[in-house]
Amino acid sequence: MSLGKRIMDWSAQAASHSEPGPGVTRLLGSPEHKALLADLDGWMQQAGLTTELDGAGNLVGRTPHKTGLKTLIIGSHQDTVRQGGAYDGMLGILLPLAVLQQLHEQEKSLPVNIELIAFSDEEGARFSSTLVGSSALAGTFNPDILNATDREGATLASALRSLGANPGQIPDLKRDPSELAGFLEVHIEQGPILEALELPVGVVSAITGIERHKVHITGKAGHAGTTPMHLRQDALLAATEVVRAVNDLCQNTDDLVGVVGELNVTPNAVNVIPSKVELTIELRSPVTRIRESARQQLLAQLHEQIVKHGCQWTHERLYEQQEVDCSPAIQKQLTSAITARGWQPHTLFSGAGHDGLAMARCTPIGMLFVRCTDGLSHHPDEAITETDADAAAEVVKQALLNWEVPA
Amino acid sequence: MSLGKRIMDWSAQAASHSEPGPGVTRLLGSPEHKALLADLDGWMQQAGLTTELDGAGNLVGRTPHKTGLKTLIIGSHQDTVRQGGAYDGMLGILLPLAVLQQLHEQEKSLPVNIELIAFSDEEGARFSSTLVGSSALAGTFNPDILNATDREGATLASALRSLGANPGQIPDLKRDPSELAGFLEVHIEQGPILEALELPVGVVSAITGIERHKVHITGKAGHAGTTPMHLRQDALLAATEVVRAVNDLCQNTDDLVGVVGELNVTPNAVNVIPSKVELTIELRSPVTRIRESARQQLLAQLHEQIVKHGCQWTHERLYEQQEVDCSPAIQKQLTSAITARGWQPHTLFSGAGHDGLAMARCTPIGMLFVRCTDGLSHHPDEAITETDADAAAEVVKQALLNWEVPA
Repeated sequence: MSLGKRIMDWSAQAASHSEPGPGVTRLLGSPEHKALLADLDGWMQQAGLTTELDGAGNLVGRTPHKTGLKTLIIGSHQDTVRQGGAYDGMLGILLPLAVLQQLHEQEKSLPVNIELIAFSDEEGARFSSTLVGSSALAGTFNPDILNATDREGATLASALRSLGANPGQIPDLKRDPSELAGFLEVHIEQGPILEALELPVGVVSAITGIERHKVHITGKAGHAGTTPMHLRQDALLAATEVVRAVNDLCQNTDDLVGVVGELNVTPNAVNVIPSKVELTIELRSPVTRIRESARQQLLAQLHEQIVKHGCQWTHERLYEQQEVDCSPAIQKQLTSAITARGWQPHTLFSGAGHDGLAMARCTPIGMLFVRCTDGLSHHPDEAITETDADAAAEVVKQALLNWEVPA
Repeated sequence: MSLGKRIMDWSAQAASHSEPGPGVTRLLGSPEHKALLADLDGWMQQAGLTTELDGAGNLVGRTPHKTGLKTLIIGSHQDTVRQGGAYDGMLGILLPLAVLQQLHEQEKSLPVNIELIAFSDEEGARFSSTLVGSSALAGTFNPDILNATDREGATLASALRSLGANPGQIPDLKRDPSELAGFLEVHIEQGPILEALELPVGVVSAITGIERHKVHITGKAGHAGTTPMHLRQDALLAATEVVRAVNDLCQNTDDLVGVVGELNVTPNAVNVIPSKVELTIELRSPVTRIRESARQQLLAQLHEQIVKHGCQWTHERLYEQQEVDCSPAIQKQLTSAITARGWQPHTLFSGAGHDGLAMARCTPIGMLFVRCTDGLSHHPDEAITETDADAAAEVVKQALLNWEVPA
């Protein structure tokens, strides 16, 4: 059986562990999660790995320990968003697992010890948590989140215990960086770039930084029939300046994306001039300097543009997360592996967050992106091809056989 | 007592007949309506008028009938929007009533018979009806509306009966145009033009025509971090074209106003590219030709502007109402009266609808606008000054003393 075929078969089986409804819904500590862990445990053991469920609910599969070698951690998450797809997260577990099984069958020797980890929770759809599994390893786990509750009032701690994990052991999971050989995550791209380039895989340069703002624009309500055009203070008209400015700036700046995703009008009536608009701005860049410069430029120009419509405005930063760079050494190893397997290497940044955001706190990280159909993700139609799965697995195998511990 | 003082006193007393809460809320057939009618009836009788509540709930006050003279109908509505002001509607009853009372006291003779009418329902806030009282006189009353129900399930017919009106007599109310000498309505401007011109009154040229459209724009949802800018189909970005095009067209076209008052984004999330926007367009003009030409120009240019953002769109007309011109002869009489009283005459159109829309079906109409503070209307802070009320009353008195039946 080809690596690609095995990956697709396992992915289909894993996707069957889902709540009813469109796509895949598998939340932390759910019966579906528990059923998946049983399957994963069996597949890991078939691949010659010894398994353990740690205190954070991560399922860890280890190659036989060789003294003197450092440990490369490979993995991704097993939870999904509600009505998500079969590959976001799971591909980063099942693809390296297929590689490790083949290497085991072929009795190949690797230059590092491997821990393949199925992280318990990255999406955080049940408890509004995020990166639970990987932050435990990084030593950045916030124990307060154990008291977070789901819609029914169950705690995250109880969800971990229902899997058989003991959250009291989480502090013991922190890894010693000196023993690690890096972190590698395989993930679907969740965007259309590789598809447009006709490439099966790409090397990730960084996981994006993100900032989010809320903007409040205040104009003046008025009768839409009796207020002359030149005396209006139309908050929606002023808001169009923001939507356009964000788009124009991002269109004209490399390595910057942004959107006004949310916009609400008051009073929102057919015959009343809009008096208030609240909207959100999100900016993402893999380079802090670019993102900060864009923000400064945007806020400076918006003031003039909004005031000229007779409106006032305020803004507040809702959220900010610094970008995380991928290790240049690991990028180079992945690029070499891609070239060795006959593909054109291409480097791109990740616009979404991943477990690497946490893992970078304890070891150099690298990511390999796999082409996905129509750039779709977090969607029931999320798809990859068996051919691409096979190509990506060959690249990972090549990289593992030649893995060098990053300096 | 000056006319202005009397008008302000009566207005304050009339405004006291309101549901509790901010501003004035007086709905058709409510206890507040009934209490107001009792006051009005007394005031009309003091002014020498004989009174009658007709089948449509209109309170009609008549000057002593002189054979051979035609009848000028003067009036406005006594209902309000929810949490409206003290002058929208009521001023058009109380101001001419003060004039008629003074003329009665001074035993002045008029060249026409007068019917002062307090129309039962123009705003239609309780039954989503409109122009109930005036359409009965015009002969355009739709009897189906008698079965319309309020939030508690009461019918419009029962509301009329609670006032002591007999809706079965509505068909008898239709007036014979050959007996009429026109219709005159005094109303607050509901806009800021007279205030900007520092004029107490203005002559209305026409009541606006109105059309409303709903526009649906469809783009494509996408992860706001992973979709490159140049591959987006952002429905909100496309919607900014509509908001701006409506504004630009109306800014650059005389006698045309318009607004995008309602706009709703889907999925409306901070990190998702907007996939759908629904918005409304309203256009108003006192000239059909201008409004239709504007609509054609707008729809033609929007297609290109929306498609260039990779989005699709549809639109549907929700509503259309033709404009109604005021009688040139009545405009001229009002202009002469304003000049005679030493004011600068100014002509403007009404961007809002009024009872004249219905009355124009049976007789030539004219309207006199009175300056209101900050252009505010349909609002608890709606206000006029005693000085302006006095000036407007003097103009009306001058016009009545010299009224000529329009050809």
